[in-house]
Amino acid sequence: MSGLAFQREQLVRFGHCDPAGIVFYPRYFEMLNELIEDWFACALGLPFDVLIGQRQVGMPTAQLDTRFLRVSRHGDHLQQSISIERLGGGSLKLNIAFVGDDGPRVEFTQVLVCTSLATHKPQAFPDDLRAALERSLAAQEQETDKP
Amino acid sequence: MSGLAFQREQLVRFGHCDPAGIVFYPRYFEMLNELIEDWFACALGLPFDVLIGQRQVGMPTAQLDTRFLRVSRHGDHLQQSISIERLGGGSLKLNIAFVGDDGPRVEFTQVLVCTSLATHKPQAFPDDLRAALERSLAAQEQETDKP
Amino acid sequence: MSGLAFQREQLVRFGHCDPAGIVFYPRYFEMLNELIEDWFACALGLPFDVLIGQRQVGMPTAQLDTRFLRVSRHGDHLQQSISIERLGGGSLKLNIAFVGDDGPRVEFTQVLVCTSLATHKPQAFPDDLRAALERSLAAQEQETDKP
Amino acid sequence: MSGLAFQREQLVRFGHCDPAGIVFYPRYFEMLNELIEDWFACALGLPFDVLIGQRQVGMPTAQLDTRFLRVSRHGDHLQQSISIERLGGGSLKLNIAFVGDDGPRVEFTQVLVCTSLATHKPQAFPDDLRAALERSLAAQEQETDKP
Repeated sequence: MSGLAFQREQLVRFGHCDPAGIVFYPRYFEMLNELIEDWFACALGLPFDVLIGQRQVGMPTAQLDTRFLRVSRHGDHLQQSISIERLGGGSLKLNIAFVGDDGPRVEFTQVLVCTSLATHKPQAFPDDLRAALERSLAAQEQETDKP
Repeated sequence: MSGLAFQREQLVRFGHCDPAGIVFYPRYFEMLNELIEDWFACALGLPFDVLIGQRQVGMPTAQLDTRFLRVSRHGDHLQQSISIERLGGGSLKLNIAFVGDDGPRVEFTQVLVCTSLATHKPQAFPDDLRAALERSLAAQEQETDKP
Repeated sequence: MSGLAFQREQLVRFGHCDPAGIVFYPRYFEMLNELIEDWFACALGLPFDVLIGQRQVGMPTAQLDTRFLRVSRHGDHLQQSISIERLGGGSLKLNIAFVGDDGPRVEFTQVLVCTSLATHKPQAFPDDLRAALERSLAAQEQETDKP
Repeated sequence: MSGLAFQREQLVRFGHCDPAGIVFYPRYFEMLNELIEDWFACALGLPFDVLIGQRQVGMPTAQLDTRFLRVSRHGDHLQQSISIERLGGGSLKLNIAFVGDDGPRVEFTQVLVCTSLATHKPQAFPDDLRAALERSLAAQEQETDKP
């Protein structure tokens, strides 16, 4: 089984849900952005307010493929996980899952690209971000090797 | 060139944009849902408040693949279009584009599935919805055949 | 009866509504911001992307008193109106109503303050904005005087 | 000094902020709803998914007066607090503050009303909710009496 780069739990709130009583799907993408934000801040040590706000390094999404597998309801707890599939020189491919107690609710494959916010053009990862991502990938692979 | 089932224009508003000055990507999915909602209400003649609210027919998204090609800024006008790629007995595959004056900004491939809101299980399209979708597809194909 | 500075109509969309089937109140504030944005762009001739984005003139809200009088449901049409109660040198007090076919749904009293986005400190309205607001107020008062 | 019924901390996230780099004010109302939701779930022992979803007891906002005192930026931590000002038979008046390290950012006075979701009409609080609110008020007053 594949190791994970980051995990957290997300409560499905009243404001996430629609008149059909289930999560309104644009809210899943707000949750996804919060997950990535927490990974950068808590695990990689590079909070977005520093990276994006102060250093003007962007991390926009280039591609995002989403499979909605089961509905989520108000009050559910979702186990969210990030697994790095590919780490390039200035881009990152992630497999992300939101899992409820009956199995996966949503699965994402997300490609993030490093850009300069001055130009919105792609650039290589800054050295400290690259080092943090390599450490995260190494930890994930070590976890994968466990029997 | 492929014909279109529906078109409309969307203004990029202040509230759609993030501190980097560009559209925050979860907002694109809110725009997408409004586009589908307008297609059903204005072109198919089956507004969601009737279909979902009164008749308890759901149209959740099963798969959504998104390519973010160019950034959009506050004040931009996006030309939005829907093209039906495949019409099944209880599902629908759409190609959707949001285009700015410099080319496509975002492209979506979206699979919608008809469900019962009582059970959240898939079901065949109700007859009037199926007929409306077939008319929309026929109009789109006629447009495609134009020289 | 008091005259109006601006009016428009707002459709209550699926994404505005909560599991109780009615508008989730934070969405009313998104609608309110869009109303103010349209007033500035369409009636005052000073779109926010120019005013805020290019000229770095902020128009933050200092005070906002809201009365929720009746529920709104998916598919409802709300008549939105703005009436200027007081025009100061760098601030603006507005009375705003969202009205459904059974009467007012929400009423807001909103104080907006002109700021510099470089410092987030209050400043006087720029001359062209002041002139546009004075024209809007004069038109509103003329409407009020009508028999 | 007045005692508090509930407190928590809120991180200002990227998605809360606008192109001016500060919290977009409709996002404060989303935060407010999450705060109330956490108070009910964590302190009153009556989560909204049970109260609203299963028992069809609504807690809509009737009046909400808001003072925006200082700007909040991405990455800020807000100390949020709820103080009960008045507990009626089927309504509740709260004073709520979001405080940053430079002082209060936003202050709300919110009146919540208990309703039946079948009719959206006001009703008395259910007994267990009334008892929980009375305990919360008593704890708050005890805190106030401390020297």
